[in-house]
Amino acid sequence: MKKKKKNQKKKLWGSRFSKPTHELVESFTESLSVDSQLALFDIAGSRAHVKMLGKCKILSQKEAKTLLGGLDKVEKDFLSGKWKPNPKLEDIHMNIETYLTKLVGEVGGKVHSARSRNDQVATATRLFLRHEVVSIILLIERVQSVLVKLAESYYGVVFSGYTHLQQAQPILFSHHLLAYVSMLDRDKSRFEDILERTDVLPLGAGAMAGTSLPIDREYVAKLLKFSKVSENSMDTVADRDDLIETASACAILGMHFSRMSEELVLWTSSEFNYIELDESFCTGSSIMPQKMNPDVAELTRGKTGRLYGNLMTLLTIMKGLPLAYNRDMQEDKGPIMDSIATVKAILEIFEQMMQGLKVNHDEVHLKLNDFALATDLAEYLVKKGMPFRQAHGVIGGLVSSTLLERKQLRDLTSADLKQASKLFGKEAKDLLSFRTSVEGKASLGGTSPKEVKKMISVWKKRLSKNKGKYNGKCLSGKK
Amino acid sequence: MKKKKKNQKKKLWGSRFSKPTHELVESFTESLSVDSQLALFDIAGSRAHVKMLGKCKILSQKEAKTLLGGLDKVEKDFLSGKWKPNPKLEDIHMNIETYLTKLVGEVGGKVHSARSRNDQVATATRLFLRHEVVSIILLIERVQSVLVKLAESYYGVVFSGYTHLQQAQPILFSHHLLAYVSMLDRDKSRFEDILERTDVLPLGAGAMAGTSLPIDREYVAKLLKFSKVSENSMDTVADRDDLIETASACAILGMHFSRMSEELVLWTSSEFNYIELDESFCTGSSIMPQKMNPDVAELTRGKTGRLYGNLMTLLTIMKGLPLAYNRDMQEDKGPIMDSIATVKAILEIFEQMMQGLKVNHDEVHLKLNDFALATDLAEYLVKKGMPFRQAHGVIGGLVSSTLLERKQLRDLTSADLKQASKLFGKEAKDLLSFRTSVEGKASLGGTSPKEVKKMISVWKKRLSKNKGKYNGKCLSGKK
Amino acid sequence: MKKKKKNQKKKLWGSRFSKPTHELVESFTESLSVDSQLALFDIAGSRAHVKMLGKCKILSQKEAKTLLGGLDKVEKDFLSGKWKPNPKLEDIHMNIETYLTKLVGEVGGKVHSARSRNDQVATATRLFLRHEVVSIILLIERVQSVLVKLAESYYGVVFSGYTHLQQAQPILFSHHLLAYVSMLDRDKSRFEDILERTDVLPLGAGAMAGTSLPIDREYVAKLLKFSKVSENSMDTVADRDDLIETASACAILGMHFSRMSEELVLWTSSEFNYIELDESFCTGSSIMPQKMNPDVAELTRGKTGRLYGNLMTLLTIMKGLPLAYNRDMQEDKGPIMDSIATVKAILEIFEQMMQGLKVNHDEVHLKLNDFALATDLAEYLVKKGMPFRQAHGVIGGLVSSTLLERKQLRDLTSADLKQASKLFGKEAKDLLSFRTSVEGKASLGGTSPKEVKKMISVWKKRLSKNKGKYNGKCLSGKK
Amino acid sequence: MKKKKKNQKKKLWGSRFSKPTHELVESFTESLSVDSQLALFDIAGSRAHVKMLGKCKILSQKEAKTLLGGLDKVEKDFLSGKWKPNPKLEDIHMNIETYLTKLVGEVGGKVHSARSRNDQVATATRLFLRHEVVSIILLIERVQSVLVKLAESYYGVVFSGYTHLQQAQPILFSHHLLAYVSMLDRDKSRFEDILERTDVLPLGAGAMAGTSLPIDREYVAKLLKFSKVSENSMDTVADRDDLIETASACAILGMHFSRMSEELVLWTSSEFNYIELDESFCTGSSIMPQKMNPDVAELTRGKTGRLYGNLMTLLTIMKGLPLAYNRDMQEDKGPIMDSIATVKAILEIFEQMMQGLKVNHDEVHLKLNDFALATDLAEYLVKKGMPFRQAHGVIGGLVSSTLLERKQLRDLTSADLKQASKLFGKEAKDLLSFRTSVEGKASLGGTSPKEVKKMISVWKKRLSKNKGKYNGKCLSGKK
Repeated sequence: MKKKKKNQKKKLWGSRFSKPTHELVESFTESLSVDSQLALFDIAGSRAHVKMLGKCKILSQKEAKTLLGGLDKVEKDFLSGKWKPNPKLEDIHMNIETYLTKLVGEVGGKVHSARSRNDQVATATRLFLRHEVVSIILLIERVQSVLVKLAESYYGVVFSGYTHLQQAQPILFSHHLLAYVSMLDRDKSRFEDILERTDVLPLGAGAMAGTSLPIDREYVAKLLKFSKVSENSMDTVADRDDLIETASACAILGMHFSRMSEELVLWTSSEFNYIELDESFCTGSSIMPQKMNPDVAELTRGKTGRLYGNLMTLLTIMKGLPLAYNRDMQEDKGPIMDSIATVKAILEIFEQMMQGLKVNHDEVHLKLNDFALATDLAEYLVKKGMPFRQAHGVIGGLVSSTLLERKQLRDLTSADLKQASKLFGKEAKDLLSFRTSVEGKASLGGTSPKEVKKMISVWKKRLSKNKGKYNGKCLSGKK
Repeated sequence: MKKKKKNQKKKLWGSRFSKPTHELVESFTESLSVDSQLALFDIAGSRAHVKMLGKCKILSQKEAKTLLGGLDKVEKDFLSGKWKPNPKLEDIHMNIETYLTKLVGEVGGKVHSARSRNDQVATATRLFLRHEVVSIILLIERVQSVLVKLAESYYGVVFSGYTHLQQAQPILFSHHLLAYVSMLDRDKSRFEDILERTDVLPLGAGAMAGTSLPIDREYVAKLLKFSKVSENSMDTVADRDDLIETASACAILGMHFSRMSEELVLWTSSEFNYIELDESFCTGSSIMPQKMNPDVAELTRGKTGRLYGNLMTLLTIMKGLPLAYNRDMQEDKGPIMDSIATVKAILEIFEQMMQGLKVNHDEVHLKLNDFALATDLAEYLVKKGMPFRQAHGVIGGLVSSTLLERKQLRDLTSADLKQASKLFGKEAKDLLSFRTSVEGKASLGGTSPKEVKKMISVWKKRLSKNKGKYNGKCLSGKK
Repeated sequence: MKKKKKNQKKKLWGSRFSKPTHELVESFTESLSVDSQLALFDIAGSRAHVKMLGKCKILSQKEAKTLLGGLDKVEKDFLSGKWKPNPKLEDIHMNIETYLTKLVGEVGGKVHSARSRNDQVATATRLFLRHEVVSIILLIERVQSVLVKLAESYYGVVFSGYTHLQQAQPILFSHHLLAYVSMLDRDKSRFEDILERTDVLPLGAGAMAGTSLPIDREYVAKLLKFSKVSENSMDTVADRDDLIETASACAILGMHFSRMSEELVLWTSSEFNYIELDESFCTGSSIMPQKMNPDVAELTRGKTGRLYGNLMTLLTIMKGLPLAYNRDMQEDKGPIMDSIATVKAILEIFEQMMQGLKVNHDEVHLKLNDFALATDLAEYLVKKGMPFRQAHGVIGGLVSSTLLERKQLRDLTSADLKQASKLFGKEAKDLLSFRTSVEGKASLGGTSPKEVKKMISVWKKRLSKNKGKYNGKCLSGKK
Repeated sequence: MKKKKKNQKKKLWGSRFSKPTHELVESFTESLSVDSQLALFDIAGSRAHVKMLGKCKILSQKEAKTLLGGLDKVEKDFLSGKWKPNPKLEDIHMNIETYLTKLVGEVGGKVHSARSRNDQVATATRLFLRHEVVSIILLIERVQSVLVKLAESYYGVVFSGYTHLQQAQPILFSHHLLAYVSMLDRDKSRFEDILERTDVLPLGAGAMAGTSLPIDREYVAKLLKFSKVSENSMDTVADRDDLIETASACAILGMHFSRMSEELVLWTSSEFNYIELDESFCTGSSIMPQKMNPDVAELTRGKTGRLYGNLMTLLTIMKGLPLAYNRDMQEDKGPIMDSIATVKAILEIFEQMMQGLKVNHDEVHLKLNDFALATDLAEYLVKKGMPFRQAHGVIGGLVSSTLLERKQLRDLTSADLKQASKLFGKEAKDLLSFRTSVEGKASLGGTSPKEVKKMISVWKKRLSKNKGKYNGKCLSGKK
């Protein structure tokens, strides 16, 4: 009997249990190590909940005031480290309520009136998610800005463009950088969609059926800056789409950075030797003193693994679960928090690292292979009226014989060209220049300096326009 | 020399090669078995491309007309089966061009002027994707409509609500069905976001750098009903975000159906026995003649596997690829087409199957466990001013002692309640009714009949409003 | 210059660097938070390495003795907590070397003679892996033992056997438990294969090419209890198969437990109500005081997610990496350690929890559906010479008409049977008993009590035989 | 009534059903498109089953003979194409039985006596799996042989060894190739473990409980060349470990080939230009006539995606399924067959492609960076007694100053070395040779020519020893 009493004290839900929880269960089921990141968001949710309970007379004015004061103190003591959550109390939510009750007395138990842990956790998680997604969007914009600046400062540098890792066509290095900016913009757009789709308050769904207490969910939504209130209580506590969708957006973003990273690794190899990264972003070798390894790029590429894995984890957890809440879903927080932290770390370090990227102009120029100009010769013939397939054949033959004679395209004379096709005029020889090639690609979105310049200015405008767009939103988790 | 000639005929890109392709390579690299689904979309893309080439004087009016006539014939012969693509010709795109050239002569080679297979394939795939995504959206709406109708026809039926697969609180069966409708609505919203984010024309990016021919990409976009033109040629041919994002939306949708399926499997078990599915959607056993298995639900749950797997496939393919196009990316079509076909098949069969679902009222009622009313007792005490945690304790004790005496909550007398807490008035006994419980959950989004009725009408309005929204769009792949 | 000096002190590889590492890089690249689990294994590896260096005269006897003494002290101070690794020093290996050097002076730097961090880490990880895999094998055997004991104590209890979650045929509950034992035995066998395949020493591969110092790898292998020495230095440092294979074995094991967990969740639902778990392995609800949730089973099912995800993480990391070592591979430790810890926690808690499982005999018996005996009737006809397909048809018809009349099979009279087929003799009616059915399934591996009894005794013998098999092996990481 | 009759004819399990299957269900549940690969294995299983039924007098001698004759005819007609399975009949197993019955009359229905589709399919799948796994093992050995031959023919060629894609140390190209051979050997070993673990006959488990007919499973096992018989009927039909484990081994093998492929892509780039692949294994570009793309390597790298995805598919399917058989499991065949076919195609094409690989000696030599010799200098100092860490510092400084002066290590004079450390003797200068470096790495498994020569001969012996090991085994699926 005494044992039971003791246990009742420990577990807030323990009233009908006659045995204490097995000690293995304590560690198996605890989530504090992960969910203490939710502390401030849980407090923010409780604060809004209490205000509403007061407004709806479910709490007296005095009770509400006491609880709000208590929550302020909990927050303060958590931030200052004066109060530390206790792993024995399962999760951060139980911890907060317990400490609150310790601070304000039995009235602390009223904070949980008209709510369940199911909708409470969903709310704290959503506030957290919104906060983090905004942070990610802002970080993406910062990386985009760095890339645009880099594109501006390297404007005009001709670089090798690849397909199949074979030199294909000359491009502007800035054009390559802006390709990253476009990739990142889709990432940003995905995160913005998530913000919109999660702009819905879960609190008030209760355990799964709603509540018989006269709550005002729309008031809570207003306090927590949500535009909408969830429409189905069962769906509300059964749903983890927001986390999966975010993990998916993180995985795609990670994939993008794995591609950039692959290129940084290639470009810093001695065979390419196109760029140099700032030493402060490289590490050395324990046995090979000459090495300067692009570790940040490699690790970023490697971290794609955890971003993919976390997505798989979340999808697997939810597979085949009947409605509404199941305890399996507690396993959701680790992976999403890891994905978010990983993505933020990648964005932060790329923002810094890319600023120090230096192009080795000479090496880049030296390695440009003038067979990459073959397309221009083919397009010349097309302009003269030859069907593309035929032009392709003509130039293919020319490349082939030039290679056989171990020559370069630039070694070809006007006569050689003429021999390949009568359509070649004198000016054709002028095509055999990387700059001419790049300048020619004047189609919308092409690599011509004019187009690239336009895009640099477009991006600068876009990026400056967004400044401040999320002010306030991202702080909604805090007081 | 002769060999080479022969090879040139076979491979449109073969001009500089002196050896024929190894026979193993033919089968290893062919994609026709998968990409012939793109045929009509490729033709649509070529048609718009040719019109633009004519408008921009890259083709003469006559050439353009000839090519357009040829493309019409290719389409007609493909649809009628008169012409069948040949696996020796690598992919559907080469097949179409080859057949076109066979039909119209050498001018057929001009269809490829100012484009590369890279932007051509990206365009055909995007047209395909847009078409399929619209189909999915329309199918989702149809399943939603069936569920809403079902919710309407079962309006008022009290059902058991679960958390942890333990009976938690009584709910309306209609509320449960509307939870599915809400889940599906997020799915739909994700597909709509994809439509928006992919409303961008890839054609005109060339192999990766743009083109030196004076094309008009905006005109092509208009013809193919895209609002925007891609802004960076390298990104355009290097990007497969659209497919991954779609595979992710398919995986989440599949997860939702795995949950519904799990419930259908549970509910048709003899232990639950809550519903019956129409016989025509069940199959029997080869050895157990008595079985009527919910195979469609099981297979749907199983198909979640391929939806998750396809997403992982696509993410893996793209990991660490340098820009711009790499041949690895050819492996993208199988998984996305499989995900799309799977999702469509699931939606189609659920639309039919759910219509025939019948609830076994008696069984459902019989199995309702009145401990599921405990929350209502607790909320009663809260309304009377008791802190929730204390109320939880009181009711927990009551449940515990009732169970010990092998009684049900409904067996409790007013006196029993009074003994548990003095706050219990006479009317408290009335709470011990499933219908009362459900009626009480009047919070927004709760399970009270009033709320559920409102939501049924909200959904009916929403679903009817969308009718016709995508007319035209989904046909853009066709002539 | 001073800065450089300072940096040299901090980073053991820093000699050719003129700039300190960026602070973001410190946290981005550190792995201490994860790899301090390797501390004892790293020390064990170093100890063997130093002994060999002494034996091969690469170190003097005195130097070797000093280093061995130093390593003992490092180990002791680590275990006692007197010394704590410093995150600034990147990883546990650098920490150990640095502390060793602090303890024994400059000679500490000689511990790294003739080895690189690449082969050093591979060795520590392998020692760790071997240790953990043995632990997992022993835990699997413990769970098997509990299940066999449970099977023994419930010997004779008839239970419902399912396919498609529809009652199919009666079985012995013990037979069901032994199915788990067989599943776990394949898991064990996979882990044993891993032990065998990883019985290979990595140390001595150097950074990737081997070493020019006259080392004796076979001596190190003997000291660390490996039977073989790796055969190719590049492969040795590039290989992470062992971790992936282990993650895969963990994922499959997790899948098995997700199936057991699903069954525990089903069986504890009030609709099945077949078993009870000990209260100490359940938790309650914050809002529904009546609930006793099978949280451990649910969380186990959920943890399948991370086991799958971790496997995906590792596979993704390694995709497309050129030989030999790449920094991406540092990301390998988190996921494998998480998978191992998860699997161990599941095994430990199931060992305890399953001991307290109680079958509700009455409920199980009550719910047995005698249509599950239909197969026996069909097999009766087959024995009488009727082709199986025809027998299937006859019994199918019988079931159908019985259902139509809302009767049970046991209600059928001998005359009814006779009417269905003349082959039915009088004794056929006796088949309509669950016990008779179970007793009849006397084929090898079938559910007849005789077969089950035999298997219980087979398993008991097997499990006792293995006792002590891994003694010593699992401790190889320690001194 | 007529409809039912018709349906009975179509579905062998249809006897108790009064409605025909919905047409959507036909296509949703059919698996013929996938499982017709099992035809010969299913026939082989039936053949052994019938022989046993005859031996055990469950069939008369005459019946057995008739059925065996019928099965021979089914096989013959299937192989000749005379008989084609009909998709309306669900799967290949039903097709075979139906055709058999058409051929031999009603006695055809006796083939299914004492078995269920559950154990029948498990058996056919296992025979298929064993056959395919043996094929994979033999193909692995063939690729290994090609690599060993290549290593032999390039014996002596010094190549650059990389870590972090930075030149680290010179190695023998043959050593690099043998690293692949070692990787593949682990793959082979995993497939051999699968052969062993699946050397267990499923047939005889019935639907899940065994059978009451007096069968002789051990006789069937003998006929089908299995050493063991499965021990638990429920586990037997519920188990898909064999497929998952195979998918995992395929994924790891695919990962290995993605790494080789990455290297082939790198080495054929114009920046590395280390090797040439035979033209017949490359393809060209539709717009860039100069390109010779390593498509096979790229596609192989891309196909890793589907190998990973298929593994995830299978794991997901099995997650959380209660025992024993569930229809979800029918989804298992597509992914495993795709993984097997993919792995076989990769192995076959690499066997051919690698034979034609040519090393560009000059380029390889030209690009060797002599900073890769720094380790040798450090090891020299270690041999002279300097602690490794100190030696690392000395050489790091040397590298740093040499780079600053834009010199190469080979430009250093003996005096320069002496200045860096007094321990440098005159002979130290001789270390600055790639060949000397390679020759020095004489540790076991190192890159010294002597070690490499030894390993070439070891591999040749091992590979020749295995010849014929699997004769017979791999044909067990056929008559």
